[in-house]
Amino acid sequence: MGSVFGRVFRVVTFGESHGPAIGVVIDGVPAGVAIDESFIGRELGRRRFCQLPILNPRCEDEEFQILSGVKDGFTEGTPIAVIVWNRRAISDYYNELWMKPRPGHADLAYYLKFGRFYDHRGGGRASGRETVARIVAGAIAKAVLKQAINVEVASHLIELGGVAISREDYTFEDVVRSWEKPLPMVDDEAVRRAVDVLVNTVKEGDSVGGIGEVLTTEVPPGLGEPVFDKLRADLAKAVMSIGSAVGIEFGLGFRLARMRGSEANDQIVLRNGRPRLETNRIGGTLGGMSIGEPIRFRVAFKPTPSIRKPQRTVDLEKMMETTITFRGRYDVSTAPKAILAAEAMTAIVLVDHAMRAGLIPRVIKR
Amino acid sequence: MGSVFGRVFRVVTFGESHGPAIGVVIDGVPAGVAIDESFIGRELGRRRFCQLPILNPRCEDEEFQILSGVKDGFTEGTPIAVIVWNRRAISDYYNELWMKPRPGHADLAYYLKFGRFYDHRGGGRASGRETVARIVAGAIAKAVLKQAINVEVASHLIELGGVAISREDYTFEDVVRSWEKPLPMVDDEAVRRAVDVLVNTVKEGDSVGGIGEVLTTEVPPGLGEPVFDKLRADLAKAVMSIGSAVGIEFGLGFRLARMRGSEANDQIVLRNGRPRLETNRIGGTLGGMSIGEPIRFRVAFKPTPSIRKPQRTVDLEKMMETTITFRGRYDVSTAPKAILAAEAMTAIVLVDHAMRAGLIPRVIKR
Amino acid sequence: MGSVFGRVFRVVTFGESHGPAIGVVIDGVPAGVAIDESFIGRELGRRRFCQLPILNPRCEDEEFQILSGVKDGFTEGTPIAVIVWNRRAISDYYNELWMKPRPGHADLAYYLKFGRFYDHRGGGRASGRETVARIVAGAIAKAVLKQAINVEVASHLIELGGVAISREDYTFEDVVRSWEKPLPMVDDEAVRRAVDVLVNTVKEGDSVGGIGEVLTTEVPPGLGEPVFDKLRADLAKAVMSIGSAVGIEFGLGFRLARMRGSEANDQIVLRNGRPRLETNRIGGTLGGMSIGEPIRFRVAFKPTPSIRKPQRTVDLEKMMETTITFRGRYDVSTAPKAILAAEAMTAIVLVDHAMRAGLIPRVIKR
Amino acid sequence: MGSVFGRVFRVVTFGESHGPAIGVVIDGVPAGVAIDESFIGRELGRRRFCQLPILNPRCEDEEFQILSGVKDGFTEGTPIAVIVWNRRAISDYYNELWMKPRPGHADLAYYLKFGRFYDHRGGGRASGRETVARIVAGAIAKAVLKQAINVEVASHLIELGGVAISREDYTFEDVVRSWEKPLPMVDDEAVRRAVDVLVNTVKEGDSVGGIGEVLTTEVPPGLGEPVFDKLRADLAKAVMSIGSAVGIEFGLGFRLARMRGSEANDQIVLRNGRPRLETNRIGGTLGGMSIGEPIRFRVAFKPTPSIRKPQRTVDLEKMMETTITFRGRYDVSTAPKAILAAEAMTAIVLVDHAMRAGLIPRVIKR
Repeated sequence: MGSVFGRVFRVVTFGESHGPAIGVVIDGVPAGVAIDESFIGRELGRRRFCQLPILNPRCEDEEFQILSGVKDGFTEGTPIAVIVWNRRAISDYYNELWMKPRPGHADLAYYLKFGRFYDHRGGGRASGRETVARIVAGAIAKAVLKQAINVEVASHLIELGGVAISREDYTFEDVVRSWEKPLPMVDDEAVRRAVDVLVNTVKEGDSVGGIGEVLTTEVPPGLGEPVFDKLRADLAKAVMSIGSAVGIEFGLGFRLARMRGSEANDQIVLRNGRPRLETNRIGGTLGGMSIGEPIRFRVAFKPTPSIRKPQRTVDLEKMMETTITFRGRYDVSTAPKAILAAEAMTAIVLVDHAMRAGLIPRVIKR
Repeated sequence: MGSVFGRVFRVVTFGESHGPAIGVVIDGVPAGVAIDESFIGRELGRRRFCQLPILNPRCEDEEFQILSGVKDGFTEGTPIAVIVWNRRAISDYYNELWMKPRPGHADLAYYLKFGRFYDHRGGGRASGRETVARIVAGAIAKAVLKQAINVEVASHLIELGGVAISREDYTFEDVVRSWEKPLPMVDDEAVRRAVDVLVNTVKEGDSVGGIGEVLTTEVPPGLGEPVFDKLRADLAKAVMSIGSAVGIEFGLGFRLARMRGSEANDQIVLRNGRPRLETNRIGGTLGGMSIGEPIRFRVAFKPTPSIRKPQRTVDLEKMMETTITFRGRYDVSTAPKAILAAEAMTAIVLVDHAMRAGLIPRVIKR
Repeated sequence: MGSVFGRVFRVVTFGESHGPAIGVVIDGVPAGVAIDESFIGRELGRRRFCQLPILNPRCEDEEFQILSGVKDGFTEGTPIAVIVWNRRAISDYYNELWMKPRPGHADLAYYLKFGRFYDHRGGGRASGRETVARIVAGAIAKAVLKQAINVEVASHLIELGGVAISREDYTFEDVVRSWEKPLPMVDDEAVRRAVDVLVNTVKEGDSVGGIGEVLTTEVPPGLGEPVFDKLRADLAKAVMSIGSAVGIEFGLGFRLARMRGSEANDQIVLRNGRPRLETNRIGGTLGGMSIGEPIRFRVAFKPTPSIRKPQRTVDLEKMMETTITFRGRYDVSTAPKAILAAEAMTAIVLVDHAMRAGLIPRVIKR
Repeated sequence: MGSVFGRVFRVVTFGESHGPAIGVVIDGVPAGVAIDESFIGRELGRRRFCQLPILNPRCEDEEFQILSGVKDGFTEGTPIAVIVWNRRAISDYYNELWMKPRPGHADLAYYLKFGRFYDHRGGGRASGRETVARIVAGAIAKAVLKQAINVEVASHLIELGGVAISREDYTFEDVVRSWEKPLPMVDDEAVRRAVDVLVNTVKEGDSVGGIGEVLTTEVPPGLGEPVFDKLRADLAKAVMSIGSAVGIEFGLGFRLARMRGSEANDQIVLRNGRPRLETNRIGGTLGGMSIGEPIRFRVAFKPTPSIRKPQRTVDLEKMMETTITFRGRYDVSTAPKAILAAEAMTAIVLVDHAMRAGLIPRVIKR
């Protein structure tokens, strides 16, 4: 249970980190969407951070395969299945961690829920590698969004390892282009300082967290439903389902809680003959529904739990306390990859809600 | 669409603020749960804030009626329907607001989605009064939780109108008892200062936001599912579906994003023969699943959008800019009622996930 | 669990036969649908069979109330809740049946699932009276179908107590008008003979079953989804969820199983510039999806299990065999009311699928 | 949309007949279930009918691969993905059928719903080959049923091409063993006559339909939910989602519609200290829920629509009437493979409902 997301545009993922493959099935894709395999490859490529060997020393392409749902470059309206083959993983250093849950990791939770049957190698199902399937589904979702309702989604980091960007005046395009840098930050000075932090943190065998932001171009009104299925609620679920996410705030978020109504309310004005918000402090929804403004929210990611320092745990076979030191491959920060997953989940939620709202037909006319 | 919540324990709400009634149907309640009508009444009573006339000058009891699913004081296993009748509402001052959406309110979103068919009186379906149905469902959920797996849920405010509590050492019981005070804060000095802020804010015709916290007693392991249906994700969705919620953070939340792994990771220790977290910075879940620790998160609520100051909007019939000043009844802050709704939603999510995890049987043995 | 139906157009029902009320909440109704309360009353009236006192000696109007979702005669796009109040039921003769399950009834199943907590009076949740909620939801669904995509649904009996109609040449209009007769059969002679059978069966304290047919006007293509959510599959679920339904067949149904492909296949021809089926032996779908033809299926209903003859059962308290004779009110055949419920469920499924297929917008333009 | 089945035990399928692979993802499998790959192979093998070359001249093994969710022979509790690779299909003779929908096939429906984007080769997504994924999921479901609640499911044909079995006294074991014969019928004489019919029908280039039956060993009480999610309703949906299914009847089915209550009601008796049905005319459920009896139902399958006789259709590009004669590989009857799919779907529904009812824990203790 738990690996199916969405109501109409449905994403199903599978795969363990050290199993043969990670995969995704997407049911509910409209027919007639042009699918460019190289775009999927590029989206997967953004996870590689080849300019920043600290994050991914090997920088290898992912090998993926579309198994169904696409014919002659266009979606058929049937489920699209994509498999991303896992490279041969070295699981040796996981042997000593069997039944010794790593602090901050999912190991303990899987043991308590599934008993001895869980796969702990490389984090198993809870590995960050799981987000590969989200990225693929996100690429399909982005194609639908762009072709059907001309909406785009982007993301960047606004803080990493304590280094925050110092600009607030960036555009959507600035955010998109930030991915050409070693780290996706709109402020070059912040990139330099954050890289330094990462380098020093790796030296110490430690890890850092970060804060990312997702934003979109203008979303047509009507996405999101009253009461429980608010767009904000489904975005929160989608993003908080990412392994390292620990907080989310829309628009000015926690800052709004300290404002007065007269400061917080976005005034409604007329622009190009349409009612619009003068500001967008609320982040793009009212009453849980999109209103023609861009969606905007921030996500906090905790530091990678795997570190090379000794940590206390319990040997679950002997039921006694012990100490472990992780020796396998690890990311000094999950935030750069995790914000990509948040961007993908945002695209997925937007397609699902646009379809629920009847804004995307079952066949995209070409 | 949007008024159904949950997968196995399903909550369905209906009703407009100025319609005949607000109601809730709860499908999936186990049989054999003792239902005390006076408990439902008391839970609804917590919304009244009778000690604080600024929040609710009238302080009247809600009149509710159980229509199905309960026989001789016990649940039957069939849907429980409860209706809360609306008092005769005075809708007159809403006439002048028809097609003039109030800034910060859902009016504009409803107009853009549903055209002229939306009910704007008292906020219609988007009124804060909608949470009455959540409170009733939460009361049923709390009875199930307590009787089936001995879990309790509580909430309080940690900040209101900029006044924060100064204690961090409070217990679950302190939080429960905070509801005996004029405002549910564990710090008496904060209560006094926050009341002052509310009084002054009302004088100015303005409003304030706040931050609340929800916490539970120890939750048995295994609630929540891998990948998308993480307990954290479903709690985030549940809570972010509350009208004024703009942010949520679990455990130390955004503070974790600024820590190193060695600071953030909760060490695993042996306590009473069970693996436990030495600290609970993460807020009670790992890999998205409960692990035997209490669940803990904070929610940011924006200030009430209705204020008595003039605000800019657009007359949607004439499509021209105009100004409105709200003259109806309003809450100077929605946070005290909203955190109650968050508490209720937490109970609902916990029951739903405990049932999904097979931890609650279909008949509670007595 | 089990009282929620549909994915986008969602129907939720509640209520026990001898409780205060039966009710329904419909979430997902588009905005702008004209709702005529007298139409709901007439649809409920069809259940009364006032011309046939054997089926309903009292012939009283149902008293119903719309609690939400309708403003000034039009749907708002929010959930519509309707309550039908139960008259004061006489439960006395049920006292002797407590823990003595009636053969053919749901009593035994409820006891085995919910223990002593089930409500057996009048059949409780499993009473035929439960279909009142389906009829109300069906009336709303019919309004949506008619106003949004100009589709109509009708039903009639083709066999009752062994008396079959002898015509096959009836039109949709004939079927609609059959409800003006004592029994909804298109063949007057069959009506007379079936009434005789009912009268004689009542004299003997026995009951009879019957077969009904549901048919529609032309349904636009595209309702139904490949593989699991075929229109035929969802109709089968919807109809087989009616208490006394024991079989369903589409088009020629079981007769098709004895044909050759060359006899069974509907040839595809051009009519008015559109590809159409020359015949409609298959009942209106191909590959599980509507193709522009009317939908057509038959349903078998078992005889009413309540009879006034002694029957064998087990006293579940003493765990010993015993005999019971039912003395309460009973319907000599459930088929006439059950086919109405099947008609209602068909309308509900068609709306749900038309919305999934994007054929019904969220606001019906007027 | 449409390729996800189930609420808790969820089956997702994908794949086109002439694409690279057919696949299935099963989410919600409990942990600790022993998975024997050779059992999956044998279940797939039952589709081959190697003793009856008319049904499958090539009789080749399917090549399948488990990609996730199984470790060291046991389920992990995470999604199980299985891929069955398609052999290189010869699509040439489909070229002439492009935009010329075959009567009785899904082609026309796909065109009307998805436009020119559908894959018609080999029936595309609507091919009978789609059931390969159901068989794999059914094999997993059978393993869960057997290991968790000791329930088994079997199926056979009771009529094929007009040849009916003449026995009614067969046992569950007889039904299981019928699969060792050329055709799965419990009556050897019927097998001989049915084979003759198939041979002659092939000679004529025509096809035949049939009727199958699914039955189970005793199912524990409590599967199925009141009102909409009756076990019978979900089984009907599951089975009617199979391509060639046109009717279903439970227990005595349509025969019950012609009986009186006194003939139809199963009397309740005491057997081994438990209340049981004396007969099982109703097919194993009351009020939609299992009661400790075996489940039993029959399914009608229409004849294969592909035949080698000329048939009328419309050329959708030229929008003119034309004639086609199918020249590709075809099954003279789909019934033998289709009843296998019905058996698999039954196992899937039973696991889903047993999990909803809390009868199957999240970890199978070993």
